[in-house]
Amino acid sequence: MSTPKPNEERPLGALLAPDILVILEESPQQVGIETEELHPADLADVAEALPRDRVRALFDALPAERAADVLEYLNEDLRAELLEAMPAEDAAELVEEMSPDERADVLETLDEEVAGGILEELEPEDRRETEALLAFEADTAGGLMTTEFVSVRQDLSVEDAVTEVRAIARGGRKEVLYAIYATDAQGHVTGVLSLKELLAAPGGSRIEDIMWTDVRSVPASADREEVARLTSEYDLVALPVVDAQRRLLGVVTVDDVIDVIQREQTEDVQKLGGMEAIEEPYLDTSFGTMLRKRAGWLAILLVGEMLTASAMGFFEDELQRALVLSLFVPLIISSGGNSGSQATSLIIRALALREVRGRDWLRVAAREAPTGLVLGLILGALGALRVVAWQWLGIYDHGPHYGLVALTVGASLVGVVTFGSLAGSMLPFALRRVGFDPASASAPFVATLVDVTGLVIYFGVALLLLRGTLL
Amino acid sequence: MSTPKPNEERPLGALLAPDILVILEESPQQVGIETEELHPADLADVAEALPRDRVRALFDALPAERAADVLEYLNEDLRAELLEAMPAEDAAELVEEMSPDERADVLETLDEEVAGGILEELEPEDRRETEALLAFEADTAGGLMTTEFVSVRQDLSVEDAVTEVRAIARGGRKEVLYAIYATDAQGHVTGVLSLKELLAAPGGSRIEDIMWTDVRSVPASADREEVARLTSEYDLVALPVVDAQRRLLGVVTVDDVIDVIQREQTEDVQKLGGMEAIEEPYLDTSFGTMLRKRAGWLAILLVGEMLTASAMGFFEDELQRALVLSLFVPLIISSGGNSGSQATSLIIRALALREVRGRDWLRVAAREAPTGLVLGLILGALGALRVVAWQWLGIYDHGPHYGLVALTVGASLVGVVTFGSLAGSMLPFALRRVGFDPASASAPFVATLVDVTGLVIYFGVALLLLRGTLL
Repeated sequence: MSTPKPNEERPLGALLAPDILVILEESPQQVGIETEELHPADLADVAEALPRDRVRALFDALPAERAADVLEYLNEDLRAELLEAMPAEDAAELVEEMSPDERADVLETLDEEVAGGILEELEPEDRRETEALLAFEADTAGGLMTTEFVSVRQDLSVEDAVTEVRAIARGGRKEVLYAIYATDAQGHVTGVLSLKELLAAPGGSRIEDIMWTDVRSVPASADREEVARLTSEYDLVALPVVDAQRRLLGVVTVDDVIDVIQREQTEDVQKLGGMEAIEEPYLDTSFGTMLRKRAGWLAILLVGEMLTASAMGFFEDELQRALVLSLFVPLIISSGGNSGSQATSLIIRALALREVRGRDWLRVAAREAPTGLVLGLILGALGALRVVAWQWLGIYDHGPHYGLVALTVGASLVGVVTFGSLAGSMLPFALRRVGFDPASASAPFVATLVDVTGLVIYFGVALLLLRGTLL
Repeated sequence: MSTPKPNEERPLGALLAPDILVILEESPQQVGIETEELHPADLADVAEALPRDRVRALFDALPAERAADVLEYLNEDLRAELLEAMPAEDAAELVEEMSPDERADVLETLDEEVAGGILEELEPEDRRETEALLAFEADTAGGLMTTEFVSVRQDLSVEDAVTEVRAIARGGRKEVLYAIYATDAQGHVTGVLSLKELLAAPGGSRIEDIMWTDVRSVPASADREEVARLTSEYDLVALPVVDAQRRLLGVVTVDDVIDVIQREQTEDVQKLGGMEAIEEPYLDTSFGTMLRKRAGWLAILLVGEMLTASAMGFFEDELQRALVLSLFVPLIISSGGNSGSQATSLIIRALALREVRGRDWLRVAAREAPTGLVLGLILGALGALRVVAWQWLGIYDHGPHYGLVALTVGASLVGVVTFGSLAGSMLPFALRRVGFDPASASAPFVATLVDVTGLVIYFGVALLLLRGTLL
């Protein structure tokens, strides 16, 4: 089958689906051969583009091992639907062909009863292994690792190790061979080397002569963010997971780390936008979930914003006497929110990448204060200019004291933007200090915080500058 | 040297630096041996923690190959300082030990004249290779790839290929061995296989019998985001870069892809926060750069917010007659901004992950409208409740028509939140349609957009509901 050229709007899966559908109808036994060279990710896209009631036929037509590969890339909902509709023996036969970590990931997304039924149909060893992996939290190193890794005794000769590794590779299991771990007689990890280093090693040497003894590893309970950070910092393709005695429990591979990084990033962006993170793709998220994840923060922020109504009420007399002040309320408080939002997103990201650490808060404050001040001076000048320009151009009459109004707007912007930058940059530190994720400091959260203070600053400046004239 | 236990606030580099400093003073020839088992990333941290004038001594004390490994992980500024202070021959000797892509990356960050001087001191072949890489844009596949990859002829026997690969591995160059590429007689890429697959292959077979022919590849001009997307989608550890004739030019490795993903994410978060992306870590960014990256958007947003002053001015008569309306202006416009910010961050991320594509805009709108409506009803109820509650509790007197004021606030919130959700979700699509990065639709941008409309909705509702009573 020739491969058509996909583009942004027409992914490969959608392009191929009609042809595969025809083959499925006419000669299902041909499907395996016709799609042999397709990457499983692409074949999963094809399955997703098929009519729902033909997906099962596609998987039945593929050899079990191939079907398992495709299953790994399939959309979670469709995968659950497919496996839940199958007899448990058939489903078990399919997931048996997956690597243990993928198998555990798949079972975790199924209805608990169905997953239990499939587990029971697995070979005893696979079942034990899968159950052990299912016991780990999904967002820890244990939940990410695969148990099919390759380790050799450190006193093995290089020749014997090459023979052993080749035998393992031929064994047909799904183990990763990015890194080979060396262990001592008690099974403790003592070193690591790449397959390339093993092949390059001079004849006659032993593993312990050529291995790296400074092995980065994590406990099974390590947070997935820590796994991602170590992998990224040390350019690893695999990170070993060890128990308290440094015995190897499993290995997290780089492809899973990339998934973690993407998922964490999605969470961070959604939190920064002022909502709880959603786990599923946008179009797959149910209406109810979407509401739940968004309504909570919106309601909390609204309650926070109610303080602005109180502040406005507090300054009602001033507003009554100088209504012109109300004109600039949205402009002034938004500018504070905007500068705060900038500062917060900068610091959240710097903390996530560890460019900045908790103890650096004072250094950050010492940078944000002058930065905010200069930004405030720029915006303040623009704001004051607008008042004066509108007056001179005759677009709006701010009254006889328009110069003082311009000064009030300008000076308030200086104060609000400085405060916004400072508050926005300190909020992630403060949240972290009290045990929250610094990424909870969303742009709307900062904006709300700064809105209330912004009003107080604005009316404070007005009282100072306009007393005796407008107020 | 025993390795102390680093923690969040005391990274390994800072802990080790004092010891290394002593060894450097007393017996510099011991430094190489004492630090032999440290990961180069950790040794780079040590260098960064040393007094600036001792860094050179550390690098001089290390064997050239080791020094080059450490140089790769060193902070860009410090690296530039170090190399620019060295005679060009010495610097060339150091970078000669790096892989070609790292060498090009390093030279790119140096003063142009210094980089030119170092280039001239390189061996002719290395120089040619480096110059070719420098010609590619840094944010393309060409700018990311290394030219030291391993390819074999597809008609080679597996035994010969293993021998060849072992010889290459022993050659001591820095080539990556994650994947082995197969080529035909004309040098076109025809297949790919992993080192594991090569080792597992049955004796007597040829490369073409065991290779995968469906090779994902990109042209050198491909955007780094495309490189990251393919690597992530197909779980690759290396992505080949080919010319128009499918001849192999180089390979992008997964560690560089992770760097790209991290950098893109930093950019996205900063843009979402309403500023231009900064390239350097927060604390390394100069005051001037920081101002430039933030002032532009703040000023643009301020100019946008000036429309709110115009809108407020337009409704001045209404405000005069019913000053109570001004109390809820911040609350109402912020709620619109908050719901818009949620919707925008959701869609920006969904577009980045291709969960949603350009043609899906109508489906998204059809979801956001009812979601926004329900969210608006929740917030509207809360807002109206607050007016009534404050009235009944005697906290604030909204006048005899407080019921109508409550209704106005509630109904306006419904309208503003619905509009905010819809506008926030459509903005990224609109930006993309006119050729901008959808990620430019920052939270402050959406908030500003919704502020102006929010005022119009609010006063429109007020005119409708309060005519004859307050207005």
